[in-house]
Amino acid sequence: MSIIPSSVLRLLDRLRASYTVEQARSRMSHRAELVPQRALRSSRVTDAASIASLWRQLHAAGVATEAAEPVLADTQTLTDAAAYCANIEAMIGTLKLPLGVIGPLVINGLNANGAYYLPLATTEAALVASYARGAAVATKSGGVTTALLNEGVLRSPGFKFAGLIDAGLFVEWVTRNVDDLQAAAEATTRHGKLISLEPMIDNDIVFLLCRYTTGDAAGQNMVTIATDALCRRIEETCPIKPLHWFIEANFSGDKKASYLGLLTGRGRKVSASVIIPGPLVEKHLHVSVDRMMAYGEMANLGALLSGQLGAQGHYANGLAAFYIATGQDAACVSESAVGFTRMERRGADLFISVTLPNILVGSVGGGTGLPSQSAALSLLGLKGTGHGAALAEVAAALCLCGEISIMGAIAAGHFASAHDKLARRR
Amino acid sequence: MSIIPSSVLRLLDRLRASYTVEQARSRMSHRAELVPQRALRSSRVTDAASIASLWRQLHAAGVATEAAEPVLADTQTLTDAAAYCANIEAMIGTLKLPLGVIGPLVINGLNANGAYYLPLATTEAALVASYARGAAVATKSGGVTTALLNEGVLRSPGFKFAGLIDAGLFVEWVTRNVDDLQAAAEATTRHGKLISLEPMIDNDIVFLLCRYTTGDAAGQNMVTIATDALCRRIEETCPIKPLHWFIEANFSGDKKASYLGLLTGRGRKVSASVIIPGPLVEKHLHVSVDRMMAYGEMANLGALLSGQLGAQGHYANGLAAFYIATGQDAACVSESAVGFTRMERRGADLFISVTLPNILVGSVGGGTGLPSQSAALSLLGLKGTGHGAALAEVAAALCLCGEISIMGAIAAGHFASAHDKLARRR
Amino acid sequence: MSIIPSSVLRLLDRLRASYTVEQARSRMSHRAELVPQRALRSSRVTDAASIASLWRQLHAAGVATEAAEPVLADTQTLTDAAAYCANIEAMIGTLKLPLGVIGPLVINGLNANGAYYLPLATTEAALVASYARGAAVATKSGGVTTALLNEGVLRSPGFKFAGLIDAGLFVEWVTRNVDDLQAAAEATTRHGKLISLEPMIDNDIVFLLCRYTTGDAAGQNMVTIATDALCRRIEETCPIKPLHWFIEANFSGDKKASYLGLLTGRGRKVSASVIIPGPLVEKHLHVSVDRMMAYGEMANLGALLSGQLGAQGHYANGLAAFYIATGQDAACVSESAVGFTRMERRGADLFISVTLPNILVGSVGGGTGLPSQSAALSLLGLKGTGHGAALAEVAAALCLCGEISIMGAIAAGHFASAHDKLARRR
Amino acid sequence: MSIIPSSVLRLLDRLRASYTVEQARSRMSHRAELVPQRALRSSRVTDAASIASLWRQLHAAGVATEAAEPVLADTQTLTDAAAYCANIEAMIGTLKLPLGVIGPLVINGLNANGAYYLPLATTEAALVASYARGAAVATKSGGVTTALLNEGVLRSPGFKFAGLIDAGLFVEWVTRNVDDLQAAAEATTRHGKLISLEPMIDNDIVFLLCRYTTGDAAGQNMVTIATDALCRRIEETCPIKPLHWFIEANFSGDKKASYLGLLTGRGRKVSASVIIPGPLVEKHLHVSVDRMMAYGEMANLGALLSGQLGAQGHYANGLAAFYIATGQDAACVSESAVGFTRMERRGADLFISVTLPNILVGSVGGGTGLPSQSAALSLLGLKGTGHGAALAEVAAALCLCGEISIMGAIAAGHFASAHDKLARRR
Repeated sequence: MSIIPSSVLRLLDRLRASYTVEQARSRMSHRAELVPQRALRSSRVTDAASIASLWRQLHAAGVATEAAEPVLADTQTLTDAAAYCANIEAMIGTLKLPLGVIGPLVINGLNANGAYYLPLATTEAALVASYARGAAVATKSGGVTTALLNEGVLRSPGFKFAGLIDAGLFVEWVTRNVDDLQAAAEATTRHGKLISLEPMIDNDIVFLLCRYTTGDAAGQNMVTIATDALCRRIEETCPIKPLHWFIEANFSGDKKASYLGLLTGRGRKVSASVIIPGPLVEKHLHVSVDRMMAYGEMANLGALLSGQLGAQGHYANGLAAFYIATGQDAACVSESAVGFTRMERRGADLFISVTLPNILVGSVGGGTGLPSQSAALSLLGLKGTGHGAALAEVAAALCLCGEISIMGAIAAGHFASAHDKLARRR
Repeated sequence: MSIIPSSVLRLLDRLRASYTVEQARSRMSHRAELVPQRALRSSRVTDAASIASLWRQLHAAGVATEAAEPVLADTQTLTDAAAYCANIEAMIGTLKLPLGVIGPLVINGLNANGAYYLPLATTEAALVASYARGAAVATKSGGVTTALLNEGVLRSPGFKFAGLIDAGLFVEWVTRNVDDLQAAAEATTRHGKLISLEPMIDNDIVFLLCRYTTGDAAGQNMVTIATDALCRRIEETCPIKPLHWFIEANFSGDKKASYLGLLTGRGRKVSASVIIPGPLVEKHLHVSVDRMMAYGEMANLGALLSGQLGAQGHYANGLAAFYIATGQDAACVSESAVGFTRMERRGADLFISVTLPNILVGSVGGGTGLPSQSAALSLLGLKGTGHGAALAEVAAALCLCGEISIMGAIAAGHFASAHDKLARRR
Repeated sequence: MSIIPSSVLRLLDRLRASYTVEQARSRMSHRAELVPQRALRSSRVTDAASIASLWRQLHAAGVATEAAEPVLADTQTLTDAAAYCANIEAMIGTLKLPLGVIGPLVINGLNANGAYYLPLATTEAALVASYARGAAVATKSGGVTTALLNEGVLRSPGFKFAGLIDAGLFVEWVTRNVDDLQAAAEATTRHGKLISLEPMIDNDIVFLLCRYTTGDAAGQNMVTIATDALCRRIEETCPIKPLHWFIEANFSGDKKASYLGLLTGRGRKVSASVIIPGPLVEKHLHVSVDRMMAYGEMANLGALLSGQLGAQGHYANGLAAFYIATGQDAACVSESAVGFTRMERRGADLFISVTLPNILVGSVGGGTGLPSQSAALSLLGLKGTGHGAALAEVAAALCLCGEISIMGAIAAGHFASAHDKLARRR
Repeated sequence: MSIIPSSVLRLLDRLRASYTVEQARSRMSHRAELVPQRALRSSRVTDAASIASLWRQLHAAGVATEAAEPVLADTQTLTDAAAYCANIEAMIGTLKLPLGVIGPLVINGLNANGAYYLPLATTEAALVASYARGAAVATKSGGVTTALLNEGVLRSPGFKFAGLIDAGLFVEWVTRNVDDLQAAAEATTRHGKLISLEPMIDNDIVFLLCRYTTGDAAGQNMVTIATDALCRRIEETCPIKPLHWFIEANFSGDKKASYLGLLTGRGRKVSASVIIPGPLVEKHLHVSVDRMMAYGEMANLGALLSGQLGAQGHYANGLAAFYIATGQDAACVSESAVGFTRMERRGADLFISVTLPNILVGSVGGGTGLPSQSAALSLLGLKGTGHGAALAEVAAALCLCGEISIMGAIAAGHFASAHDKLARRR
């Protein structure tokens, strides 16, 4: 019985079998001779010529196979190349992700209202089938009720002062000049509104939590530009001078899971719920309400014991597939896939709800205007102005469908076999 | 001065302007008349015919525009349709994501070793340019040093007993029969190895934390199937009978950020670092080492104060783009985008490191064999057997490049303007 | 190499050596014969007679030694017994904790201002000596600068509704009737003021985060009573009826560490800092500023990697000793001992700060009026009305002294030997 | 409607009413004239003379009232002074805390077994009464079942290396030399055993998580001294030299709540549970099982939404009172008051459990030998060698009693009135 964990011993065994200490040391050392390689040169425009130029460089570097180029830089992509110019740099083609569809999903939402068909882009077997199952059960139960509960995208510049006194006086000044700062921020944008400004002091450092509504856009760039203007206005007019300031310092929760996001929300907070009649639980999920509740108890404990941020099953699966399909920022899955799933027995029936405080979607901007993303979004009927809030409610309803299905599969003991069957079709 | 937060008041104002209470109530109520809609029918095969069938249904439902179908279900996609059958259900086409490339990125890794060109699929302006900048600086500095530090994918079944006594006796039995259980798990897989088994008791519930190495695959399905076999072996042979058990109960950290993952790792843990000579910092990042350190102090505080899981800038951006481009599971960004970025002054130079405990990538399996994903992966030279560990080191090195670039941009005060310029090209 | 952790194997070995399975099962089973024992009867008054009565019962139960009674129920305690009646039930005597003193600690605070002597009650060797050392260094450096940054004690009742619609309408009603609710809450207290009311919805459940200033008292009971009145006012007047409601549901952070407390504060938030001249660091802490910074880097990483709530060394030591000595609620150490310690090089000198968002102290109420607590508090000069904020600043300054000393000891390599020397004096 | 939070505006209003900017600046500035004050001089011995000497200094400083001295430095304390010498420095007397008692509490534990009377030291009204009520209900229900589930106190030294390569080689060396290191650690102690050693790498920094069993002592100093020896052995014999190392770096969870402690335990992990018959719930808690379950649902959600570490009601209250009464380290409440409370309906009855992973108690060492602490401990019958595990089980059983009572009071709607009645007796 070694007091060193077995996983450490295993890894060391494997590494020792592969490399001597000297080999390891040599591999991990900096080697000047590799350095002078020239970087890829890419032009500022994006078109068929710029794509071809990059491929020539990749061929010259010996890393591109003949087969790869036409698969990525196909004719259609070369034709459409200019359409991508505001969404990517150093473009060499397009990546094709299989796209599935589920629906109709009935949503009785404050903003989303009707029967929707949702596009999902994924390479993971069983994902579309699982969400489709959840959507079918929810729809047969009368549909998913949703509501937008909060909205606001954060940007959080930080200011460093000579000391605690100046930090305090700075906050005092900000509260007196908040209207002017708000005007400076809002002057940069037609759609963004600064809805709250909260100072947070840690001795000589002050963060300003700036929260904006962003119209129908996800709004991450919008709030950056507005906050930059707000900070520059402070720089010009505030008599208490910071030693330095930065537009952002890992505080806003941008692209990361955080308790700040969990507690105060970032983007849109939406709740979605459904009551599934007991007979439908039995028929479609092949499990009793009691067993669902038993699973719920254990799942909730697992979330708490493992230090999960929130308590849910797999929001990330549905969100990633939906964000990619509809031209959203896929990296935001890291902050959006946080929230709370709850189940309750309601007489003979099963209540399930999800609440997600950090949904970051837009019906305009980002990748929503690209050819295939725009086509996918058109299936939803939520393209363009006026649909941001509805899109967020659809995202939450989708997560609810995924929770229904995965909890049903685990509770029924089908989780492993379902994946096995669908993933091993090849 | 209202004691209700301004963001709540704003949202309520907006909602009141849109809906009366009665309208809201009506929209959010279940409506039986929507229910009888039939669900989409999709065949079990994936081919041009199955795709066409789904489009007919979408057209019949009135949600598909004429324009959308050929963009998603283009000729090439229809030709390749069968290739996607093990990766999606209810397929209606492919989603085209613009693909960029950065490199060469010199990596001096225990596993990844050489000069790499990395494919990145994203719709976010500035992302590729930013990572390219970081890669150029790191390469000019002699390359990124990387090492795999830990590996093991968790699955965590939970068992509920009549009480605390049985829970204890169960753990006692498991420790006596661990070899048999390990054999049952490993019999399901050629590549998976059960490397640790840790019981976790909460009164009458016992979770078994099963950690596996998974060869070159990401291995999420592999560990599910192996653990299912382990549990069924327990069910057959253990005299202490659980009231019920489930293959997973939100404990393993699958598709979610958790402190368990942060502390013990899930997938592969990799660290990557570089020392950037002071003059290169000034020349390429347009900022001094001192100012980078000042930013580092504030960023670290922001991470702590906002309750971030870990402390980093934007791993999610690079990981999402890289995971999508190389056929990985994009939803895993939710668990992978967690870790620690550190900076230190080393004389006149700048040391930067990243450590990510939850990288989930495979050089085989998942979406790695799909046409464009395979082509993208071929640029890296890390396709197929033997490259799992190297791929994980590349992912960490990529994150390091992203941290260098974003911290440089924020420290130099260029963050807002860079995004503004690149995103507003359209 | 077992795949079961060594700590589990060790514990099982030890338990097996102590008990057979049958013995364990028997010991842990409910035994009806033990049940009929009668509970202790204690009178509603607290005086020498009630104390004597309890001792008679303990003697009769065979658990009280002759020696114990006079040590706990000494003459002075019996004489003073009535003084304790509002602070304890079933009193059998007093527990004597050794009380040390440190000082003078110079504090340049917005509220605390002057040279203070602090009483500390503890049984842990080295604690008083360590804080005294930190106080001496801080005082020689010109004193500790402090400021109160925030204040407000939370109580968070939760309301359960029939569904999401009612939850939303309830929030809408609350915002329209907030003045009436505030009046109901504030009618119960002379000192408490409801300063913010924030609704938090999770589908059919609404929490109302009620934040109060509480004058010079810690105020936990005050806010409970005020919030109870607020809830009862809702019950009487709100047309949207909850299924049920509770005055508190683990949300407020009362007696527990939480990210809500870390982020928004509970009680008083105070920051304290000092700049220690380099020569004083060397002379009194026997370590260089560089080595302190090296320790700071590692300590910060340790806090992050271990998932600490905040990042600090041992606030709990000073707070527990100070809270006990001054009649505060010792259980609040669980929520108060959270915050951030930072160090920075300032030229040749060392800046150190602490920020604690959850200090819960009162200069009136609680145990502040008891004989020895009152005497200890009188040494500080902060007894009675008008001193609540100053007391909180002193608590933060004390924590700063503790951080200076422990970081110095660890950085200098004296940590183990200091404890060894002082604790083994006996 | 201001976009600045109302709590910030209120505080600023209050501060502006108290101080002008100039006054604030002046108060918070360092004042050299305060510095030369001499610190208290305390002798290395603790006796009546040393206490008198400190009082003379306090009188001379003008901070001690005539009344305070005899209350703190009473005759008995002066007589016993030497008994405290290994537990405090700069002693000026004793602090008298009222001590209550509850019981008999029947515990059916693996280690604690029988009917116990528990001493509780607190100044908070209602605390003893509340725990007594829970104990009575649990005892009437047949007693509390408990079991020790894990044990081990952590110390976590950190080593900084020239880079990632050395960090890896260091770990490799440690695993090869673990027996020698274990021997070095264990040579310092008769009771401590190093039961696991886990390396944790973050690039160039390696933490060694050293976990010890500590016999019947809480063991915090024991593990420090053993780990110091282990580190010095590394320093002497390891060829890979660290740039620097520290005995501890905020990683072990010592005196702070952390996810590491929650997940892996620190000290002793104990679970305790009871099934309360439905009629007893109604009779003693004045509430139905259904309503208890309704409260449980909301309390669990509150814990999750507020980012609580664990999910429980008020462990800290019972633990603080019990730790103080029995000579434990009161500061450890900060790490111990973490865990999970669960409720379940079992037919007509109510199951409640608590699981605490970080109980730090000893039946020897610390303050257990001081006069009144020893007397209080003697009531429990768990004084001295052989009782460490039982003491931990009693602590968990106590927390269970507190949860029963507070959840009953809140569910029944009596929480506010109970506090009001007991606290306002004065």
